[in-house]
Amino acid sequence: MKLVSNVRCFGGEQRRYEHVAETLNCSMQFSVYLPPHAGKHGPVPAVLWLSGLTCTDENFSSKAGAQRVAAQLGLALIIPDTSPRGDEVPDEDAYDFAKGAGFYVNATQQPWAKHYQMYDYITKELLELVSQELPLSGQFSISGHSMGGHGALIMALREHGRFASVSAFAPIAHPTQCPWGHKAFSGYLGDDREAWREYDAVELLRAGKPCPPLLVDQGSADNFLAEQLNFSVLHDLAEELDLIAEVRMQEGYDHSYYFIASFIEEHLKFHNNYLSN
Amino acid sequence: MKLVSNVRCFGGEQRRYEHVAETLNCSMQFSVYLPPHAGKHGPVPAVLWLSGLTCTDENFSSKAGAQRVAAQLGLALIIPDTSPRGDEVPDEDAYDFAKGAGFYVNATQQPWAKHYQMYDYITKELLELVSQELPLSGQFSISGHSMGGHGALIMALREHGRFASVSAFAPIAHPTQCPWGHKAFSGYLGDDREAWREYDAVELLRAGKPCPPLLVDQGSADNFLAEQLNFSVLHDLAEELDLIAEVRMQEGYDHSYYFIASFIEEHLKFHNNYLSN
Repeated sequence: MKLVSNVRCFGGEQRRYEHVAETLNCSMQFSVYLPPHAGKHGPVPAVLWLSGLTCTDENFSSKAGAQRVAAQLGLALIIPDTSPRGDEVPDEDAYDFAKGAGFYVNATQQPWAKHYQMYDYITKELLELVSQELPLSGQFSISGHSMGGHGALIMALREHGRFASVSAFAPIAHPTQCPWGHKAFSGYLGDDREAWREYDAVELLRAGKPCPPLLVDQGSADNFLAEQLNFSVLHDLAEELDLIAEVRMQEGYDHSYYFIASFIEEHLKFHNNYLSN
Repeated sequence: MKLVSNVRCFGGEQRRYEHVAETLNCSMQFSVYLPPHAGKHGPVPAVLWLSGLTCTDENFSSKAGAQRVAAQLGLALIIPDTSPRGDEVPDEDAYDFAKGAGFYVNATQQPWAKHYQMYDYITKELLELVSQELPLSGQFSISGHSMGGHGALIMALREHGRFASVSAFAPIAHPTQCPWGHKAFSGYLGDDREAWREYDAVELLRAGKPCPPLLVDQGSADNFLAEQLNFSVLHDLAEELDLIAEVRMQEGYDHSYYFIASFIEEHLKFHNNYLSN
């Protein structure tokens, strides 16, 4: 992997890398924050952040204010892009499908299957790559926003033991039951509804997948709350299944990075409780 | 003034307003952060933030992480745009002149003079407007970045008694002696070098203008340090004049918002020391 940029931030390093992603058949960029002295005093645990629709690795890097807290706690941040990229990758003129909207699934349908393998890219290729190349302890937690909150939840549920804890901001909690999920899963996975369930956090929980400690924040003034996010289904299920979980409604907050910035400190401290330092 | 948007952030309100700016002969937008309970427990003091080249009011709002600290301290943030806007405003195809680059001067040259009156817009019209319309105590400090650091310095020096304190990140400290300043001042002010000196912080200090308490941070890895910023002239002059000042070189930081985010807490706490609560 090739270092594209490296700037100092809260005494640590905000880096951007480029690499050829074999899983995705294209070149990808991702961002990393390393806290001060990472590597010098031994390897550090990391929080993997998955971003939402239309985002790249840069939105969270520049807007969430996460580096301040990560520096204090001694956590690395690993921030991938949200879809395959490049001229050779098929696209559509939509904000909620194709580029910028990989939905963290492995596509089975054409023309998407060749490149849109975001689930394997993140859980296998990228985690292995950063574990080899960066001063990381191998301990990961996972978090994300909206589409990325969905990604964080399904990865934590499917990759048992891989993530010490999971959190999400306004996740698409039940994508088989909302318009964004219908569109994405129809396109990437076709008509096979059984395949859809493997990428739906609510369905995975109902199927008995064990869940690591969970923190979810949802803004009550979020424009997408009613139609897309199925917050109450997730909230009630966490209670019913007696998960180690806090699933919280935050009064007056919307879907933006102003919401994420307001609560990222609590999320990183939550993860830090479960990551050995 | 018309409220364009209002989202919750750290328990307070991140607002965007639109108004017809008489000074600039155009419609303008600006952003405001109000800390929790502003107005309910009495009016609050404010820090005025001036942004750098190519910016609008949104860069600082979304990238600096200032709201967290402002919420804690009970400070409002007033964040104007960097130039007049709109189709009727003359422009050039340059990042460092015309739109996005008003340089906080009152232009005397054509075709700029009709709209590019940013000095009066900020110091007179906007401060008066927000003082009337928002729950502010009337006490202001001022800060800014790069071109906006220049703006903060000259306004603090020229508007004696208006600002309790002044700070800057990587300011264009001596614009009469750098390429950015030459280009902007030639264009907006013409060949009258006496007029230029009225908008140059170093020249204003040399002319004996009193300076409120001052904090300046400059990154040592800033690409513009050598050619544009004249840090060492400002640093040495602050010492020579025995100002109440800290003018600091921060090792390894660049010119970006990652640098600003890393030190904004110190700047807001600095201002808070001089603003009665």
